[in-house]
Amino acid sequence: MVKQEAAKVRIDLALIHYPVLNKNQEIIGSAVTNLDLHDIARAARTYGVDSLYVVTPYSDQQVLFRELLDHWLKGHGAKYNSKRGEALALVHICDDLGQLFAGVTGKWQQRPTVLATCARERHSRIWPYGLVRQKLAKGECFLILFGTAWGLAQEAIEAADGILPPINGMGDYNHLSVRSAAAIVLDRLLGDREY
Amino acid sequence: MVKQEAAKVRIDLALIHYPVLNKNQEIIGSAVTNLDLHDIARAARTYGVDSLYVVTPYSDQQVLFRELLDHWLKGHGAKYNSKRGEALALVHICDDLGQLFAGVTGKWQQRPTVLATCARERHSRIWPYGLVRQKLAKGECFLILFGTAWGLAQEAIEAADGILPPINGMGDYNHLSVRSAAAIVLDRLLGDREY
Repeated sequence: MVKQEAAKVRIDLALIHYPVLNKNQEIIGSAVTNLDLHDIARAARTYGVDSLYVVTPYSDQQVLFRELLDHWLKGHGAKYNSKRGEALALVHICDDLGQLFAGVTGKWQQRPTVLATCARERHSRIWPYGLVRQKLAKGECFLILFGTAWGLAQEAIEAADGILPPINGMGDYNHLSVRSAAAIVLDRLLGDREY
Repeated sequence: MVKQEAAKVRIDLALIHYPVLNKNQEIIGSAVTNLDLHDIARAARTYGVDSLYVVTPYSDQQVLFRELLDHWLKGHGAKYNSKRGEALALVHICDDLGQLFAGVTGKWQQRPTVLATCARERHSRIWPYGLVRQKLAKGECFLILFGTAWGLAQEAIEAADGILPPINGMGDYNHLSVRSAAAIVLDRLLGDREY
């Protein structure tokens, strides 16, 4: 089979570990979840996302992330399953939202539109998936923020230019994991519509 | 907020642990992955799926699954986060495909259309997502099979009436986790199209 180069879209994801909420709606920093990184990186690689930024201010957590990445990019994991490395090669580590925004702006030579994701409508500006899809197809840049734990703190949501609509199913239960939510968002923004 | 009852669709999911493939394409039985159960049950609950069947012939694995479910349905987990129990209440354990098909046929009083999922087109009958969506809306029954490890063995795919189209992204990398694939399939079949 001929190796096909993924089409280039100017979209990045960021997985935020601070500031996020705990179950009591208090602001916390969350810990590394191994499968968040694998699942979201694999989905990002599948849909042609440029980079997945992992945002945490804690140096011990950054060390853990780097060990994880090294295992799959250079260590035993790279030999065992090279497909994981292909996905995890998209991952970069940032200290905070300021460093994230500066890095992405530098890369694209313009500030992307930053959209937060949330299970409820916690921002005055809601960007429909169809609109973002069209703008991506025209080459506009986007950065999508996902919160770990119980979701992004209000401060992170307000740092964005808007939010994507909450993912609603059939009733009032919308407790998707961040891994599931990221997969669905990517499919809505970038997936094949001819099905 | 008024508690809304989820609309009733006649769809079930099954997470198959045997027969599935390992990385060398050999038939194996796979082990419990805690997060498969949580993520897929949460997505299933969000989209109004009736049940999530976990298929494994191994009694030690069945015991592990039951301990996991008990923790969140009756144990400390139920107190810590009742939303997990709401999702995991959809989970049932089956020994094999025969028991699965018989159980689902008994429940709906008719045999559902059984569709396998696969990263490649390994069945002669492909059911587009739009078609299944229409049939679900008309009240027809479906059972969707997901494979753990490296995916469903050919024997499990051939036991189905057809497959859903593989989820393709932007290039030839399609190594989604089963958790991500299940979330995307549910969104394609049952998600809100008004976005």
